Amino acid sequence: MEILSNLNNYHIILGSQSPRRRELLTGLNIPFEVRHIDVEETYPEFMVGVDIPMYLAEKKANAFADKMHENTLLITADTIVWHEGIALGKPANREEAVKTLQKLSGKTHQVITGVSISTFDRRKTFHVISDVRFANLTPNEIEYYLDNFQPYDKAGAYGVQEWIGFVGVEHINGSYYNVMGLPVQRLYNELKRWK
Amino acid sequence: MEILSNLNNYHIILGSQSPRRRELLTGLNIPFEVRHIDVEETYPEFMVGVDIPMYLAEKKANAFADKMHENTLLITADTIVWHEGIALGKPANREEAVKTLQKLSGKTHQVITGVSISTFDRRKTFHVISDVRFANLTPNEIEYYLDNFQPYDKAGAYGVQEWIGFVGVEHINGSYYNVMGLPVQRLYNELKRWK
Repeated sequence: MEILSNLNNYHIILGSQSPRRRELLTGLNIPFEVRHIDVEETYPEFMVGVDIPMYLAEKKANAFADKMHENTLLITADTIVWHEGIALGKPANREEAVKTLQKLSGKTHQVITGVSISTFDRRKTFHVISDVRFANLTPNEIEYYLDNFQPYDKAGAYGVQEWIGFVGVEHINGSYYNVMGLPVQRLYNELKRWK
Repeated sequence: MEILSNLNNYHIILGSQSPRRRELLTGLNIPFEVRHIDVEETYPEFMVGVDIPMYLAEKKANAFADKMHENTLLITADTIVWHEGIALGKPANREEAVKTLQKLSGKTHQVITGVSISTFDRRKTFHVISDVRFANLTPNEIEYYLDNFQPYDKAGAYGVQEWIGFVGVEHINGSYYNVMGLPVQRLYNELKRWK
């Protein structure tokens, strides 16, 4: 490839089930394969903020360790919504989704993605933070979103690329793609420097 | 419709050829029709900043005036890239596209979209500004983008939703969708209030 030719000898693997991450990595125009890595997305209780998605990105990479070849370059990531000192994960049910969206309504939260790049003998983990300000959501708008979309695989119970992101997100300070689930610009920079 | 039911009696028309605007308006989940409005995108020389896309959005609406029915709600828009006191429009050729991207490289510019909502007897025009910071683009990256993508229908010679946006846009302060060409959150708010 003409771009990121430093990675020509690597077989790039995205260790993620997320269709958004697949779409975003595709946007970098590099060949890669998707593999599912099954880990429980749990972390030590004392952990806060940026440490959580960085820990989970590494946990996913660790779970793939025995499948790494000499030419494997593995990308794993985790995204959390950080709101008033609490990490809002994927909602377990509709009730939790409603509560989560009520919390985000009319306020600013942080979306933090941790990303790990791992090869056979090296690892780089980093994080990217973006501020997202939500408009005041009416009960009707929350119900409409939950009736028509799927918030259950999404941290913070919303997808910025869906209707709720169109009508509800007033302002982003940072990277939109990070809010979608993968900070591609920073990732590209890290990959460009990879030796 | 359950959402924006205040517009139930209107026939909504998007007066734009832009596939991005069509995609973005589709995201609001309201029925609409696309019509092409042919105007020269020229404006008075003395005009600067936000006045330019607001003027052009209204110019497009004016050009459709004789096709308006009593129940027509027309949405027109124009987007400019505002950089160091100059409006960067669509590049006429590859050389201009290279120069434009070199100007944007490593700096912050403003993307301003003007939007007009027009009915038979009323019009509301507004604008939304977003700051976009570009990473330093290498000559190789600029060439790669121009070889593989189409910047010629895009203000500022770039599409934020394309490869160049993925690898080049470091930071957005404002609305990503505005940078794509239509500030859907603000538009939704205006439509919600339409009587």
